[in-house]
Amino acid sequence: MAFTSLLKIRFDDVDGAGIVYYPQFFHLCHKAFEDFFDDAASVSYPQLINEQRRGFPTVAIHSDFSASLRYGDIALVTLEIDKIGRSSATFSYEIRRKQDSKLCFSAKITKVFMDLDSKQVLPIPDDIRALWESIL
Amino acid sequence: MAFTSLLKIRFDDVDGAGIVYYPQFFHLCHKAFEDFFDDAASVSYPQLINEQRRGFPTVAIHSDFSASLRYGDIALVTLEIDKIGRSSATFSYEIRRKQDSKLCFSAKITKVFMDLDSKQVLPIPDDIRALWESIL
Amino acid sequence: MAFTSLLKIRFDDVDGAGIVYYPQFFHLCHKAFEDFFDDAASVSYPQLINEQRRGFPTVAIHSDFSASLRYGDIALVTLEIDKIGRSSATFSYEIRRKQDSKLCFSAKITKVFMDLDSKQVLPIPDDIRALWESIL
Amino acid sequence: MAFTSLLKIRFDDVDGAGIVYYPQFFHLCHKAFEDFFDDAASVSYPQLINEQRRGFPTVAIHSDFSASLRYGDIALVTLEIDKIGRSSATFSYEIRRKQDSKLCFSAKITKVFMDLDSKQVLPIPDDIRALWESIL
Repeated sequence: MAFTSLLKIRFDDVDGAGIVYYPQFFHLCHKAFEDFFDDAASVSYPQLINEQRRGFPTVAIHSDFSASLRYGDIALVTLEIDKIGRSSATFSYEIRRKQDSKLCFSAKITKVFMDLDSKQVLPIPDDIRALWESIL
Repeated sequence: MAFTSLLKIRFDDVDGAGIVYYPQFFHLCHKAFEDFFDDAASVSYPQLINEQRRGFPTVAIHSDFSASLRYGDIALVTLEIDKIGRSSATFSYEIRRKQDSKLCFSAKITKVFMDLDSKQVLPIPDDIRALWESIL
Repeated sequence: MAFTSLLKIRFDDVDGAGIVYYPQFFHLCHKAFEDFFDDAASVSYPQLINEQRRGFPTVAIHSDFSASLRYGDIALVTLEIDKIGRSSATFSYEIRRKQDSKLCFSAKITKVFMDLDSKQVLPIPDDIRALWESIL
Repeated sequence: MAFTSLLKIRFDDVDGAGIVYYPQFFHLCHKAFEDFFDDAASVSYPQLINEQRRGFPTVAIHSDFSASLRYGDIALVTLEIDKIGRSSATFSYEIRRKQDSKLCFSAKITKVFMDLDSKQVLPIPDDIRALWESIL
């Protein structure tokens, strides 16, 4: 039921120690989150942000880092949904190294639906809720 | 007892929604972590990485995002230490907006001391342990 | 004869003004450069860097920015080769917005082949030279 | 007459080859450009962007890379102005390694004054022109 995005580890994802610098794992998660919208939603995430001025800022993260990714690896980023509330949802991410399926990173990321201009929390629209229920 | 670093929010810290993109909060934390070494340690963090090929990869994060930071804000990044084990330590970070002291972000970040080439976990050296006990 | 890479403009490519921040255009160029190796070369660019410790640092850039790219746009990054010398080569890049083919950016980027550890300039190997001559 | 900004090379400035990844040199230039506004102008660059919705997008770059910067180096970024036209200005940047004054990077960067919403080119305001003439 999960959504998976394949992402190349690029030159600017790795640090001076030659491995993915830990904040970059969250960039990978966000790319999978966008890809899921592109793949399945009636509106792309950029349209939501740019045109509707609404989006899903992150409010909480619990994450564990278990192995490193190197420049040139392919990351398999898997996205599932743990729970959907009225205005917030918690997503489960796993990042594996494609060549050996080794788990490198896992996270629970909670996001809230918000008007980006007024900063007001909004109920999640029905079409997005239905989309997410498909990977619950 | 905490260590504090003042960091300008730069053009490349904010995203298309005009606020600090959430993974950038961890970049700010890492900058404060480096500044603490520069300020207080006998070895800088770059020397540890480049010359000794040892460092503190992140193994776990619990974080909460409570308010946004905008381009041009000054971030006050406060670093404390929660506990120090044989090979790992847990750091407490708070990021506040300088102009009104509003809390924007808090995190517990656990790091392990490691040989970067062999990937072997090592005991934390006494001089670094002493340094960290000063902000315990 | 040119090589083309399609790249999504991601959340972390745009800045507080809502458009691709100008240094990010060079990140897009480098991604196309890597993709070209992946597509056509016997060795990937990460293998060259990580295993052979050789690579192509940039020594000169001439570039013009003619239109903006926004979050959600697809960039068409086109790579051609202008000239190949003994140890250096000059690449021509054009970045167009996929939806209307509008030219946003063009650049000539000169790179030198180098041993990354000794920093010694090296002659370009025959297999890489042959690869590049295919898009001359 | 030049303006100089001192900037630490951070963990996320360097790449898998252990040196500053070439697009990051432009990030360093932009930081010096912002620091110059903070230091000398009546309006900060973020205020110009966020409040007045006007700014200086880059339209052309000529740059040369002559030596590398490593993680832990301090960069001395020097900003001068070559010429100021009605709506555009060309800036000269030099980046040197603080410890030995070695020149690592030089660039001419041309910027145009623009309304960020209408994308209309505007004459450079008198107060900004006067500011820049001070480092001509």
